[in-house]
Amino acid sequence: MMAGRLLGLGVGPGDPELLTLKALRLLKGAPVVAYFVAKAKHNAGHGGNAFGIIEEHLDVAQQRLPLVYPVTTEKLAPPLSYEDVIADFYDTCAQQIAQLLDAGQDVAVICEGDPFFYGSYMYLHDRLADRYEVEVVPGVCSMLGCASVLGTPLVYRNQSLSVLSGVLPEDELEQRLRDAEAAVVMKLGRNFEKVRRVLRKLGLDDRAHYVERATMASQKIVALDEVEPMDSPYFSMILVPGQKWRG
Amino acid sequence: MMAGRLLGLGVGPGDPELLTLKALRLLKGAPVVAYFVAKAKHNAGHGGNAFGIIEEHLDVAQQRLPLVYPVTTEKLAPPLSYEDVIADFYDTCAQQIAQLLDAGQDVAVICEGDPFFYGSYMYLHDRLADRYEVEVVPGVCSMLGCASVLGTPLVYRNQSLSVLSGVLPEDELEQRLRDAEAAVVMKLGRNFEKVRRVLRKLGLDDRAHYVERATMASQKIVALDEVEPMDSPYFSMILVPGQKWRG
Repeated sequence: MMAGRLLGLGVGPGDPELLTLKALRLLKGAPVVAYFVAKAKHNAGHGGNAFGIIEEHLDVAQQRLPLVYPVTTEKLAPPLSYEDVIADFYDTCAQQIAQLLDAGQDVAVICEGDPFFYGSYMYLHDRLADRYEVEVVPGVCSMLGCASVLGTPLVYRNQSLSVLSGVLPEDELEQRLRDAEAAVVMKLGRNFEKVRRVLRKLGLDDRAHYVERATMASQKIVALDEVEPMDSPYFSMILVPGQKWRG
Repeated sequence: MMAGRLLGLGVGPGDPELLTLKALRLLKGAPVVAYFVAKAKHNAGHGGNAFGIIEEHLDVAQQRLPLVYPVTTEKLAPPLSYEDVIADFYDTCAQQIAQLLDAGQDVAVICEGDPFFYGSYMYLHDRLADRYEVEVVPGVCSMLGCASVLGTPLVYRNQSLSVLSGVLPEDELEQRLRDAEAAVVMKLGRNFEKVRRVLRKLGLDDRAHYVERATMASQKIVALDEVEPMDSPYFSMILVPGQKWRG
């Protein structure tokens, strides 16, 4: 029997209309649709963000395969470490999917944004791509969803763009933002106040834009000064667009 | 009379199936479809890359508005400068489009990749967005198209990504690539040999992948050592993916 194909499908940043024709076609043809979801959401009967984007296109005959994160925080009591727990989780997910592939079924793993741009799909890909036929469909990534709803061109002509994580130590964040011609800071959440402090120190706060859940129904654009740090969700982002080139 | 709307539509990196549902809907509803095209291609009866991606969806009743670049090289005889010539060109394009908008017609400007990620649409946006209703639809950008066809996750977890232009001076390119955890170098063309030299110097050549025209029918993936610098087209790119995180 032929093994099934692993499909890594980017479904875009949130607006269901930002799905590509190709992701939609492969999604509809897949007997199994797998998706990562936080435990709290799963227990409340929800499928998570990526699932919500594509749910309307699913047929009852398609099998849903939720991949439920065992942890949602990186702070665990020793001897447990986030790295070990999450690596075991991805091992288990890969085994589950491998069984379906071995049984000849195609498995579509849906990914918010793009599969290879900070997506959890990457950890399945790294465990399975050497053994199975794989197709990866790129998607509209979250930072470009943010730029579109802000109405601000992100990066001009020969400018460099730095995509940074809010978890970086403050001094490294400062150095990298100082050197950047245009920048995106992702993974804000509890890192928000630190990032805002660095932007103010560098005088970049006037150029910075803050967005939560860009292109989703719950999207919020807030002035940087008015963001309440404790309320900043994981799906928020700061953009520092490049200086306009008159072109 | 109501003025028309300016639509900046990302049409993705090349594969016509990487168009989003939203870009397709707005494209089909637009009475005028504008696109940038090189003079040589236009004179040969072609519409250019972005036009080729969406051509199959157009109706004969939709007006085509080619925006034909007056220059294709940045080397012009003084007193002409590329900057002046191109700024005049964008001024003229914006005026043409403004006339159509004033006449109540929606104008869709199609953009390869994403409109706000190094796209020529940005120069029209900057000239028109304060006067007209605008909608920008993000697209799959070329670097994520490249990662998908290479089958290589681009950036893991908390890694930083540096998107660089091949036109950077060699020492700056070296410094930025040395600091990068993951990197993309765009705009290769005649800059290719310089970029390869820097990658070799930094020992990054083993991690670097080279692609031409990713996701297009004419796509080519070539080992970095085997690229003929003189043949490297503008639509080529080098990816240096981040080191795998076991996840």
